[in-house]
Order: sequence, then structure tokens, then C-alpha cells
Amino acid sequence: MSGHASIITCLIRLNHVSCLTTIGVIGAGQLARMMYAPSVCLGLNLHLLAETPDSSAARVFSTVHVGDYNTPGVVSDFAHSVQAITFDHEHVPTSLLTQLQSEGVIVRPEPQALRYAQDKYLLRADLGARLHIPAPAWRRCDTPEQLCAFADAHSWPIIAKASRGGYDGHGVWKINSPDEATIPFAESLGYSAGEQVVIIAEEFIDFVRELSILVARNPQGQIVTYPVSQTVQRDGICVETITPAPDLDLQTASQITQLATRIADDISVVGILAVELMQRRDGSVVVNELAMRPHNTGHWTINGSMTSQFENHLRAVAGLGLGSTRMSVPNAVMVNILGGSLSNLHSALPRVLEDERIHVELYGKQPRPGRKIGHVVCCGSDWRQARKRAQAAARRLTDGE
Amino acid sequence: MSGHASIITCLIRLNHVSCLTTIGVIGAGQLARMMYAPSVCLGLNLHLLAETPDSSAARVFSTVHVGDYNTPGVVSDFAHSVQAITFDHEHVPTSLLTQLQSEGVIVRPEPQALRYAQDKYLLRADLGARLHIPAPAWRRCDTPEQLCAFADAHSWPIIAKASRGGYDGHGVWKINSPDEATIPFAESLGYSAGEQVVIIAEEFIDFVRELSILVARNPQGQIVTYPVSQTVQRDGICVETITPAPDLDLQTASQITQLATRIADDISVVGILAVELMQRRDGSVVVNELAMRPHNTGHWTINGSMTSQFENHLRAVAGLGLGSTRMSVPNAVMVNILGGSLSNLHSALPRVLEDERIHVELYGKQPRPGRKIGHVVCCGSDWRQARKRAQAAARRLTDGE
Repeated sequence: MSGHASIITCLIRLNHVSCLTTIGVIGAGQLARMMYAPSVCLGLNLHLLAETPDSSAARVFSTVHVGDYNTPGVVSDFAHSVQAITFDHEHVPTSLLTQLQSEGVIVRPEPQALRYAQDKYLLRADLGARLHIPAPAWRRCDTPEQLCAFADAHSWPIIAKASRGGYDGHGVWKINSPDEATIPFAESLGYSAGEQVVIIAEEFIDFVRELSILVARNPQGQIVTYPVSQTVQRDGICVETITPAPDLDLQTASQITQLATRIADDISVVGILAVELMQRRDGSVVVNELAMRPHNTGHWTINGSMTSQFENHLRAVAGLGLGSTRMSVPNAVMVNILGGSLSNLHSALPRVLEDERIHVELYGKQPRPGRKIGHVVCCGSDWRQARKRAQAAARRLTDGE
Repeated sequence: MSGHASIITCLIRLNHVSCLTTIGVIGAGQLARMMYAPSVCLGLNLHLLAETPDSSAARVFSTVHVGDYNTPGVVSDFAHSVQAITFDHEHVPTSLLTQLQSEGVIVRPEPQALRYAQDKYLLRADLGARLHIPAPAWRRCDTPEQLCAFADAHSWPIIAKASRGGYDGHGVWKINSPDEATIPFAESLGYSAGEQVVIIAEEFIDFVRELSILVARNPQGQIVTYPVSQTVQRDGICVETITPAPDLDLQTASQITQLATRIADDISVVGILAVELMQRRDGSVVVNELAMRPHNTGHWTINGSMTSQFENHLRAVAGLGLGSTRMSVPNAVMVNILGGSLSNLHSALPRVLEDERIHVELYGKQPRPGRKIGHVVCCGSDWRQARKRAQAAARRLTDGE
């Protein structure tokens, strides 16, 4: 037995020999930006492929390539200049990533996993069916008539989703009546150039709340899980998270954790996997969608967890062991700052930071109405108090006093 | 009363209007490097004056000026290109900083405060005497004979210190016998070009341990204090800290906290003030020296405190409210990684990070024997356990297995 144990240990160590030290991030939004701090801490060289030199992450990275992530030559040159690539968003075409992989580029997460975050139809039809992931009733619809038939068979309203190319509420429509059934087909034209976009209809879930869980997995198969968060979305944009999700019974929390672990394991994701769920009135949950990158619902981990989602994402991509996901505080509330009437965020910062419990993260983006430009986190033993303080801080950073 | 309160509130708010958003850091070591993450988070523009483009911080900052901090023109150009300057080290000549100040440059901390960290003679003769700071017996010595006379009057050995220009053990000598008394005068020649260097003799304190406390103060006068750390120095280099200092009685902890607060207040320091102390066998403490910048004995705050020393330093320099200094863990142990036989630190990282409680910070510096190239932090409820794990991790990153 001890001989076997040694062999296993030895194999694990061999596996571990390759720590990748130069990693490329495709996409230069706030997620890439927030990856930078842990890359500095771990002494990793993080290179950026940014669409413009003034994008959120490009303002702070020391090594920035400017180019379009849809242009194969640009992505290929960038990918071959680093030891592995990872992502700030899901919009790089799967076919391009598969091509890069065949050229020897290390892509983390791999396109075979990533496609379930990129393609909502594949998620339901393939992974969902195979792993019996709890889901709303759904159907692929190729015409407005099929959407209406689905709604008639279930009940109006329904949700229509474009399989690819959506984000922050784009690509998701609530269809209230037959005359709205053409909208998804019209608006999704031009989504995700070069990849097929299909429309799926989903039962409208009259949820009591939304939940989210993050797990991280590294190439050696180590998986760590963060506690479940309650999330609030407005117009398809995450505006608030409370962690741990208040009054979530242990059994449901454990079911969600196991489900996320099972998905991560099945698809061999490398990096962060976020699973977004809806909870029905009866307490049961269904999976809404997946993301395979650091996620808005995990920003609280920067201040409330022993290891942030950004650090664990990078550790996984680099092939390193994952850090403890234990909470370092009893409760953490995150509130997004969306662009409002305040144009100079720093003018409100002194007032906001008079509350010593407020942590502020600004994304270096010009405020535009509804645009995510930062977030605040407040930690404490009373989540209602923490929420009030975080909301007040976010309000000041949105609209001033 | 309520009228007065409103006026006071109003004045405080007026004070707060000016959040400085573009800050220059002079010096590009690991302290500047570790300031970068919180600057990104607060959306501040942190510019760097580095001696070489491959220095620790220059590798990660997006805006780097290369130049010599001893050259007035270089420092002046840099200082006038930002809204305020702060420091990675104490070596910029006081006279130059005073000149910049007279030209309208905001220098934080101000040279009037900083000189007590730059000049150990001034610390003892001026600030120490005025505030009755507990200190070893000491005397300024202009000749080797005066050193010997001091030692004869107290007892051999004694400590000799150069008033300026020392760091990490340089500029401090243990003088065991009269024939060693010429050494400080010979070796301190050429220290701190342009500023007078004097030698002081100090009673040799046979301490049981060394302690350190960090406080942060902002321009509005808000002061926050971190818990007292026990520190271990080897050859004048900090190798380990344990926080809170084990078995430190409440009265001494409170005395140290009050002392540090009193100093910060008296000299109106802006940013972090570190006070290093020695504890005698009878439990009493004496102040060894001051630093006015983030300090090696405060690196644990990145992982073990609600707000790191680096963030609070920047918040103070920017004129913002200071963050909570509460510990987020029961105990935090920091162990420095000094250059050893291992040349590729990343080869040891996978093994080190198998311990999920280990946090690693690498400085991007080439390992050379005894050179500070990184540190590890381990947090936990048992400081002895945490210390063992941190020491094991640091050993692996120094010499491999």
C-alpha cells in the first residue's frame, strides 16, 4: 500500500513540474484587470490582448497587445507568444480555439469545456441531458411559430435565448405574446460571426431568487468550491450578491455544490466555473447558465475569502495548487456600481471611504448609463447591515450624494 | 451644538474634496510593486520612478520613468508630472524633497516627518527627546575614541549606527572591542551623498524579542493602528513576523499602540509609519527605529487584515479615508524568502501551493544569496502550526526540496 501511495505521490509531483509562467489573457475588461493583482503576487507574467489601448485592463497591464479577438491571425500570434491563453469573456470563436489547440497552444479552459459556456443550446441539449442537470422545460425553436407552440404547450410568457453571443442581458428575451415571437430571430442576426446561432425557448421560471456558485479546477483535477451566493439581476445585469446566500438550507447548498463539482469534473474545466441558478418557490433549483472565467457573482472573494476567484483562476491556468476558499468574514455583500449621473467617481470616493468597512474596486472605465464601472464590497456579521452600507456606497458612486 | 457639529462636518467634507488620483512612487523595489494592486483597485494612476527598467516594480507597473533618485532634475521632472509623490525607500535626500515642496509638489510623507526615518541621530536627539520615546542609552560620537568612551561608561559590546543611508543591516555595527571602533567611520564614508552622516553609539540591548507596529495616518489626521507583530531579524534582515505577537500582555500592547499613535500624530506623517522595538527581559520596550512607508513587518496584512498596509498607505497619500485594520484571521505568520540555491522559484511553486493555506508573493527579482526575493504568509488558529508551514514553504522556495 505504501508503495502504491509513493507512486501516486510521485506521479502527482511529476504532473506538478510544469508551472506555466507566461499567460495570455484574451479580452481586456474588468475581469482581466482584476486578474492582474494575483499575477503580480505569484510572479506570473500576464500578457493582455486588448481591443483598444484604453480598455479597463489595458490601462494597468505592463504588457499589452492591441488587436481584435475575432481575427484569427491576431489571436494566433498572441497565443503563440505565451505559454497558455485564458479569457476575460466567452466570445472567441470555438473553432478558432480548437485550431490553436491543434497547433499546440495550451487553451485554458479548453474549447471542449468552454463551448458549454459559449453555447446555451449545447449546454441544455448535450451536457444538461447527459448529467441530468435540473433545468427549465426547454426546446430549440427554428421559427417564431415554434416559439409560440412551445408557449402554448407550457404557458405564456416564455424566455427566448440566443444560443451564442449574448452577455449582460443581451441575447435573452421575455416573450409575452405571439407578436413578440419574431424579436429574437431579428435581433440575434449578426451575433457571433462565423458560428451558428440558434434560438431556444425556455419555460419562464417565476423564481423567488437567483443563486450562484463558483468552483475552481486545475489541470491535475483538484477542485475547490466557494460558498453559494444569492444574486440579484436587474435588466440581465448582476447588481448585487450576498454570500453565503441567506437562509439557504444545507441540503440545497450541498446539492448545488455537488452539481457544480460534477459539471467541473465532467467537462474537465480549468479555471473558474460559475454556475448560475434560479430557485423556485418550492425551494428547488434549476441551472440557468454557466460561465468559465472569473464571474461577477464572485467579486466578493477578493475581500471575503482566503483566496480570490481571480487568484484561483490563475493558479489553475498556471497548473498550480488551488488556494483555500474559506470565507475570512461571516458575510460579504457585493453591489455593482453602474454608470449614473456622477462623471468623476473619485470625487465621491473620500465620502464613501469614510465607512472603514467599504472596499471599492473601480474599473477605470468612463461612466455611461447602466455600464458596469466598479463594485463595492462590505463584510460583516449582519448581512442586512452590510447590504445597506454597500448599497449606500454604490449609490454615492453612481449619482453622488 | 448641532450648528457646530454641522460646521465641523462641513469642514471635514471640504477637506475631503481633493482625492489625488495620479501618484508617483520613487523607488521600484518590492514595496512599490506591492502598492500596485491596491492602486488598480482604487482606480488610482500610480507612476513609477525606477532606477532600471527590470527592477521589481518596473516589471509590473504600466507607467515607468527610468532615472536616478539622487539626481535633482530627474526627481523634479517626475514629481511635477504627478499630483503627489511617495516612496519605496528612505534614500531620497531630505534637502531635495524640501526643495520640491517649496515648488508646490505634494510630498507624502512630508520631509519634515520623513527625516526621522532617514536620520537616526535626529530620531534620538530631537523626536525621541521631545516625546520621551523609550530608547537605549545613546550618544553621538564623532571619533572612535568617543565610541570607546561610551562603551567603557556603559559596557561592551555596543551598537554603532550611521545616522543615514543604512538599510537591511547596512549601517549598523556591533562593536565588541576598541580595535573595531574605527569600522563605522570607515564604512560609512560615502553613505548618503550630500547629507551629513554622523555615528551614534547605543547601549547593546540583550533583547528577548523584537516587535513592530504599523499605523497609518491620512492628511485629515485619521489614524488607524494594526496589531503588534513579533519580528525576527537575521543579519539585520527581517526574516519572520508573527501577528499578533504571542503572549504580549495587553498593557504593553496598548503602550506600544499609544506610542506609535503619538509619534504619527506629532510628526503628522502621511501614509504608513512602522515603529520597530526591542523587548527586554523585564518586558519593557525601547524603540529601535522608524520607517515611513509600507514595511516588511507588515506584509502579513495583505492576507490577514481587512485592509493591507499597501492599500492604507495609498489611501492616505491620495487623501482618502483609511480602511479597517482588523485581522481577518486569528494569526498570521510571514516568512521572507531569501535567495538560496534555487534559481527558478516557479519550479518549487507547485509543491509549495499544495498547502492550500500558503500565500506566496514573489518579487520578480533574480535570486542572489541573502537577497529578499519574496515572502510567504500562512494564517491559522495555531500560530506555531502556521509558522511551521510558512517556514517549510519558504525553505522550499529558497533551496528546493
